[in-house]
Amino acid sequence: MLKLFGHQESGHAFKVKLALTIANVEHQYEWVDIEAPRESRSLEFRSHSRFSEVPVLLDDGQPYVQSNSILLHIARKLKILGGEDAVVMQRCAEWLFWEANKIGMCLPQLRAFKKHNAPEIQGETLQWLLNRYDHDVGVLNDALADGRDFIIGSQFTIADCSLCGYLTFADEAEVDLPPFVEAWLSRISSQKGWKHPYGLLAKSPA
Amino acid sequence: MLKLFGHQESGHAFKVKLALTIANVEHQYEWVDIEAPRESRSLEFRSHSRFSEVPVLLDDGQPYVQSNSILLHIARKLKILGGEDAVVMQRCAEWLFWEANKIGMCLPQLRAFKKHNAPEIQGETLQWLLNRYDHDVGVLNDALADGRDFIIGSQFTIADCSLCGYLTFADEAEVDLPPFVEAWLSRISSQKGWKHPYGLLAKSPA
Repeated sequence: MLKLFGHQESGHAFKVKLALTIANVEHQYEWVDIEAPRESRSLEFRSHSRFSEVPVLLDDGQPYVQSNSILLHIARKLKILGGEDAVVMQRCAEWLFWEANKIGMCLPQLRAFKKHNAPEIQGETLQWLLNRYDHDVGVLNDALADGRDFIIGSQFTIADCSLCGYLTFADEAEVDLPPFVEAWLSRISSQKGWKHPYGLLAKSPA
Repeated sequence: MLKLFGHQESGHAFKVKLALTIANVEHQYEWVDIEAPRESRSLEFRSHSRFSEVPVLLDDGQPYVQSNSILLHIARKLKILGGEDAVVMQRCAEWLFWEANKIGMCLPQLRAFKKHNAPEIQGETLQWLLNRYDHDVGVLNDALADGRDFIIGSQFTIADCSLCGYLTFADEAEVDLPPFVEAWLSRISSQKGWKHPYGLLAKSPA
């Protein structure tokens, strides 16, 4: 039995919810009020969220944290979205670590600035993050430029779930999407079951 | 047969070389001149470095990239440094993703600024990165504050290799190490075979 804790503002929670939804894996979902004081969150969530963050996945009562690590766990265990093949899984893990270090760093910061007017991100820092984004999204665009449907090839995998996590909010971050990235995001949002995070992770799912 | 490509300036390459060294795993090492133009690097390296970065590990001729992904691969396959136990491996993966997104982002940037006077990192950006470092190293210090020897517990694992990758260069980044982190780094450098990256990854190993 799987139980996911998340929130619609979290691109990290979206990665996991999207994977479970598109792979049609039955699971419970518990919305966590990430804007409320930590002590107001459920004891179950607090006792399992080792980094005090969403998402958390409980699998038979055992907690799994860090979105990309959760993706690796469910893909391998359930043999879904690339987990059926060790070589595909290795390529996925590489992109997952790239995501964590690159586009999954700058893009959430840029979105936080535009959406919440984050006071710690000022002129020079904003420009530095924008330069990083331009570089990172360029790497992704170059990888997709050979016409592949998804980042590893013809199969939709957990690597796509991870990489699109915050790119789905590109409009809120007010950043441009290069053409191959934009077309790839369209292919992802055409997958059966896809919903925008605001629907998929809402308190009462739409 | 394992062959590692690296360079002594790369904390990412250090993570992998340290793991192989401390676990006493036989491997070849090829120094890559990362400061030279890309086209001057060996054809073998260029054909396998999917992100054009060190480290790259060849395992029976198959390329593995992204330092933390390489660590997961060797730990699982060789059953070393935590790879003997699935639960330990899951906890390691969580710290590896945390590293990639947190301290493995800000600290290399701070070091690059101090060491190479990186022109793109100016006053506000530098302060932003320093604030991030203070927060991230605090999370690590809090985790180590219960007196555990290594980040997962009593066993030295790939998570320690990853987390210390750039913290080993803290002096060059001119950042402070809180007490539990400093003591943990001392325990790591007491491991049999440990050498500083400048020795371990030199063109002609010391």
